[in-house]
Amino acid sequence: EHHHHIAVLAGDGIGPEVMAEALKVLDAVSAKFGFTVSRKEAFVGGAGIDHCGKALPEETIRACEEADAVLFGSVGGPKWEHLPANEQPERGALLPLRKHFGLYANLRPGVCLPALTHASPIKNELIEGGFDILCVRELTGGLYFGQPRFREEEGDDEVVVDTMRYHKSEMVRIAKVAFEAARGRRKRVTSVDKANVLTNSLLWRETMTEVARDYPDVELLHMYVDNAAMQLVRNPRQFDVLVTENLFGDILSDEMAMICGSLGMLPSASLCQGAKDNGLFFGLYEPSGGSAPDIAGKGIANPIAQILSLSMLLRYSLGEKKAADAIDSAVRSVIDQGYRTGDLATGAAGEIRVNTAEMGNAVVAAL
Amino acid sequence: EHHHHIAVLAGDGIGPEVMAEALKVLDAVSAKFGFTVSRKEAFVGGAGIDHCGKALPEETIRACEEADAVLFGSVGGPKWEHLPANEQPERGALLPLRKHFGLYANLRPGVCLPALTHASPIKNELIEGGFDILCVRELTGGLYFGQPRFREEEGDDEVVVDTMRYHKSEMVRIAKVAFEAARGRRKRVTSVDKANVLTNSLLWRETMTEVARDYPDVELLHMYVDNAAMQLVRNPRQFDVLVTENLFGDILSDEMAMICGSLGMLPSASLCQGAKDNGLFFGLYEPSGGSAPDIAGKGIANPIAQILSLSMLLRYSLGEKKAADAIDSAVRSVIDQGYRTGDLATGAAGEIRVNTAEMGNAVVAAL
Ligand SMILES: CC(C)[C@H](C(=O)O)[C@@H](O)C(=O)O
Ligand SMILES: CC(C)[C@H](C(=O)O)[C@@H](O)C(=O)O
Repeated sequence: EHHHHIAVLAGDGIGPEVMAEALKVLDAVSAKFGFTVSRKEAFVGGAGIDHCGKALPEETIRACEEADAVLFGSVGGPKWEHLPANEQPERGALLPLRKHFGLYANLRPGVCLPALTHASPIKNELIEGGFDILCVRELTGGLYFGQPRFREEEGDDEVVVDTMRYHKSEMVRIAKVAFEAARGRRKRVTSVDKANVLTNSLLWRETMTEVARDYPDVELLHMYVDNAAMQLVRNPRQFDVLVTENLFGDILSDEMAMICGSLGMLPSASLCQGAKDNGLFFGLYEPSGGSAPDIAGKGIANPIAQILSLSMLLRYSLGEKKAADAIDSAVRSVIDQGYRTGDLATGAAGEIRVNTAEMGNAVVAAL
Repeated sequence: EHHHHIAVLAGDGIGPEVMAEALKVLDAVSAKFGFTVSRKEAFVGGAGIDHCGKALPEETIRACEEADAVLFGSVGGPKWEHLPANEQPERGALLPLRKHFGLYANLRPGVCLPALTHASPIKNELIEGGFDILCVRELTGGLYFGQPRFREEEGDDEVVVDTMRYHKSEMVRIAKVAFEAARGRRKRVTSVDKANVLTNSLLWRETMTEVARDYPDVELLHMYVDNAAMQLVRNPRQFDVLVTENLFGDILSDEMAMICGSLGMLPSASLCQGAKDNGLFFGLYEPSGGSAPDIAGKGIANPIAQILSLSMLLRYSLGEKKAADAIDSAVRSVIDQGYRTGDLATGAAGEIRVNTAEMGNAVVAAL
């Protein structure tokens, strides 16, 4: 019950630096809340290519299979950009991991803390008091994996096809994740589709409406994807939980992250049903931002996204809710105290400029 | 040579009000620059449904076929929202018009004038001096029209399919529109795709690169769609011409429009090659914003998007470049003079609050 096992895939760029801070925090919360977590480290992304010849080595897959959850850093960098898309660190590691483990639910909190609205590109008066969105993206269906996909000569021309394919059952399970999450929040789900054009979206809309009947306490709204792209900019505070299919979620969750203003603060979780029937998920947890090769190795990256990814892991995969809550409050408290890595600093009075390790230490101290 | 003929489809909501101002401006420029434009009015959208039983009546199609170009207002409103998606004003008029006339190139200027940066949701310091993007969206391919598209029982489950299908020739012709446009601007094309996931995007990227060889004076950049959704928010000034496929263009052009801050200022053109080999297009020209039923009939809507749609029509379909230039400068000048409809007004000193007709008159006076 109180022993867990995770795989740790730090990856490339700032991955190892911010991972070190998350593991410090893990040590602190496990001591404090009386559980143990054994860890198996493995190579992934560019590190996988360099050490084992591919972005997702077999032994890394095995390490993940043996774990209750995967704590992931970030992958990619200029060193591997000459490789074919399929073999590059991001594409070559993330898509196969999602597919292999059936990680169908991508949860991305889009939180802009009241103290950090200055970092958002949106005018302060539109986001006063900050905002808190949860984007739930379907992660294993649609255009990403749909067959057929091909290129073909056609006379003097060439034709190319990708297929947006979904099963209703895939829509039902992601809807449930969204409604369950909304229950623990402000009880509003905005489902995003393109029902005025896509057959997929007609079934999506019907399915969301059906699942909503089991959640009479949660409000369901429908929004076209083009409108959602506008509303996120105009008034992000209108959203509680956003739920959408794979490609729309790719676009909107990144737009949302940018609107929060501090990519270095945003974690994410990619989940599937766990092996045991205990309400826990198997999952891969990673910062929303990239590997930031430009600042890698300098010890200045913001470790909070990685630390909050750990918190999601504790909550969704290990069931260590108290430890997760403690990390979340510790993070809010260090921000309120004024601790700022370079990405968040404005030079305002009261700010305490810190590097990666100092930010990690501050979170540990606040626990 | 100097006589033209257009179809005028005012549509619903604020459509007729703002159209009246555009036609005033048309009278003024045709007198000034010595050409004539005969006009045939026809019903479309909700007005089509109410008067002729469908959103796109046959006689409206005929009126468009007989014209050199179509000046379109806006369609839709709560009155028709109970109808099936296919029959609703927007879906039922716009998609069939695009398909019938093969309007493959959608041009949407995303201009934020220096005097109007306050209206943008983006922080002033990120958009100082305004910005000027041209979004070129492929409009007749991809998921919008691709076959097969179907729903089907599959045991206890249901499967749904839409198809993203493109011909290389469709990519070539939209690329040319983008590169030609960039030549008359800041000579930079950003092509947006999802080449790390979609087969379509691989061909898209290759094709853009190929076409770029004929435009050595224009710079070509590639960007993933999720990143583009972020960059538009973070730094819209980096873009000159954006070119992308149908669905990505739907999402990004609306996001871009919202970032400009004043939907009431933004025109659009949907073009296909004209019948004569004179470099002119046949096209449909309409404001980017919607029919705004909440303010319809009050005479307070901003007519500038409709007036600038007329300017695009004069430029791309009638070849009346001087008249188009004159309208564009007149619009800039009324904004600089401080004329503001309600959507633009802030109450700042120097602003002259005007209604729809007064704004139209101000543009005519500035000509
Ligand atoms: C790397 C890429 C395939 C991936 C995606 O599109 O899903 C990334 O953009 C993401 O959102 O995790
Ligand atoms: C009404 C709808 C079908 C249309 C589209 O998606 O193309 C609209 O959103 C647009 O962008 O003109």
